Amino acid sequence: MEDCIFCKIINNEIPSNKIYEDDLVLAFLDINPMSKGHALIIPKKHFNDVFDIEDNYLERIMLVAKKISKKMKDGIGADGVNFYHASGIHAEQSVFHFHLHVVPRRKDDAICFECAVMSKPGISEEELKELVAKLKIEG
Amino acid sequence: MEDCIFCKIINNEIPSNKIYEDDLVLAFLDINPMSKGHALIIPKKHFNDVFDIEDNYLERIMLVAKKISKKMKDGIGADGVNFYHASGIHAEQSVFHFHLHVVPRRKDDAICFECAVMSKPGISEEELKELVAKLKIEG
Repeated sequence: MEDCIFCKIINNEIPSNKIYEDDLVLAFLDINPMSKGHALIIPKKHFNDVFDIEDNYLERIMLVAKKISKKMKDGIGADGVNFYHASGIHAEQSVFHFHLHVVPRRKDDAICFECAVMSKPGISEEELKELVAKLKIEG
Repeated sequence: MEDCIFCKIINNEIPSNKIYEDDLVLAFLDINPMSKGHALIIPKKHFNDVFDIEDNYLERIMLVAKKISKKMKDGIGADGVNFYHASGIHAEQSVFHFHLHVVPRRKDDAICFECAVMSKPGISEEELKELVAKLKIEG
């Protein structure tokens, strides 16, 4: 898609630090990382977000996230990993081409995902029941 | 697995606010949510984290995350969603049964995932090249 920075990376119109590529997805290192080794996995076809991505791309992205996580542990000594994804401007999405962050973590690093919530809303049993009724999906 | 709270939820030994269940995975609402409607998706077989989870469970979890995301938009008026996952104690994992958080987001809510990073490490082109060499996986 024109003017999509990730499509330009896919098409090699702008350079990137690729660590994995197959028929469906591409992974490369974030140039402004949350921690050293922070990677992004993107579908090679343009989708804006989780609401329009096709299932086969989504499945592959998750399998590649697992592969990369293992490599982060073995290859660069990460103690653990986080996955992070945003869909929608009010969910802090900044590039509107689907992407999954894989963030290597180390003891005493400068990241605190628990701190991402300024105040938890609290919830009653009744509210939970109402939400279940609205969110229930038949399996 | 004995003493695993999520295994007990799966086995109905402790109650939960289920919103989805199929042969491989279960989704239920977090009782201490980051935002109202915050859901967790777990495999119905015990895996500690992303390092030991089997691929078919991982794929299904991601497809269910997409279904739940859509339902959050349509059913409870979320403007967007975040996915969040932790593997490893130093990645802030607290329950050692694999789980993916799906967090519904709304304009001006009290969440800021960008704020989770206290200070970005910064990285040189040379360091990026070194990391690529260590993280590269053949596709």
